[in-house]
Amino acid sequence: MKHFNISAPSTDIHPQLIDKVDDLTKPKGSLGRLEELAIKIGLIQQTLEPHLTHPCNVLFAADHGILDEGVSVSPKEVTWQQLSHFSRGGAGINFLCNQHGFKLVLVDAGVDYDIPSNCGIINKKVRRGTRNFLYQAAMTSQEWELCLQYGAEVVESVHSKGCNVISFGEMGSGNTSPSSMWMHILTGIPLAECIGAGAGLNNNGVQHKLDVLTQAWNNYTGSDSVEHRLQWFGGYELAMATGAMLKAAELKMLIIVDGFIMTSCIAAASHFYPNVLDYAVFGHCGDESGHKRMLDALGVRAILHLDLRLGEGSGAVCAYPILVSAVNMINEMDRVSTVQVTKYF
Amino acid sequence: MKHFNISAPSTDIHPQLIDKVDDLTKPKGSLGRLEELAIKIGLIQQTLEPHLTHPCNVLFAADHGILDEGVSVSPKEVTWQQLSHFSRGGAGINFLCNQHGFKLVLVDAGVDYDIPSNCGIINKKVRRGTRNFLYQAAMTSQEWELCLQYGAEVVESVHSKGCNVISFGEMGSGNTSPSSMWMHILTGIPLAECIGAGAGLNNNGVQHKLDVLTQAWNNYTGSDSVEHRLQWFGGYELAMATGAMLKAAELKMLIIVDGFIMTSCIAAASHFYPNVLDYAVFGHCGDESGHKRMLDALGVRAILHLDLRLGEGSGAVCAYPILVSAVNMINEMDRVSTVQVTKYF
Repeated sequence: MKHFNISAPSTDIHPQLIDKVDDLTKPKGSLGRLEELAIKIGLIQQTLEPHLTHPCNVLFAADHGILDEGVSVSPKEVTWQQLSHFSRGGAGINFLCNQHGFKLVLVDAGVDYDIPSNCGIINKKVRRGTRNFLYQAAMTSQEWELCLQYGAEVVESVHSKGCNVISFGEMGSGNTSPSSMWMHILTGIPLAECIGAGAGLNNNGVQHKLDVLTQAWNNYTGSDSVEHRLQWFGGYELAMATGAMLKAAELKMLIIVDGFIMTSCIAAASHFYPNVLDYAVFGHCGDESGHKRMLDALGVRAILHLDLRLGEGSGAVCAYPILVSAVNMINEMDRVSTVQVTKYF
Repeated sequence: MKHFNISAPSTDIHPQLIDKVDDLTKPKGSLGRLEELAIKIGLIQQTLEPHLTHPCNVLFAADHGILDEGVSVSPKEVTWQQLSHFSRGGAGINFLCNQHGFKLVLVDAGVDYDIPSNCGIINKKVRRGTRNFLYQAAMTSQEWELCLQYGAEVVESVHSKGCNVISFGEMGSGNTSPSSMWMHILTGIPLAECIGAGAGLNNNGVQHKLDVLTQAWNNYTGSDSVEHRLQWFGGYELAMATGAMLKAAELKMLIIVDGFIMTSCIAAASHFYPNVLDYAVFGHCGDESGHKRMLDALGVRAILHLDLRLGEGSGAVCAYPILVSAVNMINEMDRVSTVQVTKYF
């Protein structure tokens, strides 16, 4: 597997960060998670004055062979239609990126459609959709490596333009199915607890999805290797996001993880490089069944709980102003030692 | 009691609001609470194109006679020191107001200090601190009415300058004590479950606070009237915020409720005028014991859960970008009926 050079941030600066936050003009701890986030970002950036620059949401889109088995209410053509829609503005992720000053980077990771070359969508198409993992590996090992490489390249490109905070999103009809398989592979939580309604299945639909994925799991003929299983049950956009997250951690960027699908990607990334989590915050915990359990398995807490289930990076971008608040807190608040306020805490 | 003219928004527009939100290019319901908030704001403003204008955080400050009983770690002088600090910038509420474009309006509701007249703090001082409600009524009925009137006047003033979304904050050493008493009066939840650590009491401190407040409750010699009890155990900043919220609802403004203390104020406001809740969203649920229970008693859910316990309006202002997202969603997203995306939901 492609190598990434990911190490934990040095903790030498940790005591100074804590001292600074505790000296701000407020009762100790009273800004709760803003304090925790400010310290985390300070550690990543190795500074007492962290800054977030050129935020960027990279959205990977791809199609999925497993969609043939009726595991989603969303038809395949919605993948390219929505990707095209994102490029013109007017979709969910567009208004959020506009609100928070995010650059939206669109990547064709493997959409089953000829995307026009002149609409600003980066062409990293590995193949026109994965194979149907009910019967065979969704992707080859070569395709997996290519995804990791492509994801890393996209992140290197935005980093070179000054971006130090990055979120990832996805578009792909049927892609909660590979995500549920990845969650099952990576956490060992029973498959039935990794599966939800996706874009809007009813109870019968969820049961059918569980039946299909259980059968696919039983049909698996590969090795016991986690990496092989991730490939077999993977998606091109999931694999590319995994490589992108690993490169972002290597480049010491702050990663904002979106919802269920992107959480399965960072779970995969952290299987190979546990320190990727030192660079990640979790924007949103949605109601897709299992998301909360996967966050618990990773030992993390999401920033927002707004019942979003749109994907596209929406939950990550929504959480951005909270990160800005954390950074502004540590940079803009007066210190007790420099103003006339009695320190009583 | 001062009369306010508060009625529920007409629901005639409700079906059209739902139709518009459901026709946006996303699976139905997939933007969760943003959808719910957009519909609420559309109802308040009676439009399919709501807008938030000139947001404002009004911060009422006052002192409390009950502080003499050792119910807080925060000394009395911190009230005027922090109020003065807010006027110069550099406190918690300042960076949040700056980040989100809020005007910060500071009101001396009853601080036990001669606030200079030239520092931009509105003088609505009722008295230099309430009386100690362990032994007597914290405020008279006349002072209560004056607070409601003053709160209303401040809101009328900012409304006349174009503000249609308003949050309220407070500063007052010891003011979780009157808030806990109000919660107990208004919800009937046992006093022990209405009391928390405030600005940072340890377990012994919380027990002492409970002992003092229980004794105060037992010492009460007034009538059974809720209004009389609110006066007896009240605070000037709490009463003023109550009047301010009622006027904001009368003026059909969107009210963003802050944490525990401001929730006790809107609980009081809704006791007299239940429809005030039609105009209110709840910015933040903190860890002050009882806050979650009080929100449950009101039948509402907070937007954020960030473990804040600063007061000042910080939790309300922090939640503002989520409200902006809701409004941007309904105004900026394309509709399925006008773009080329298959409707599958």
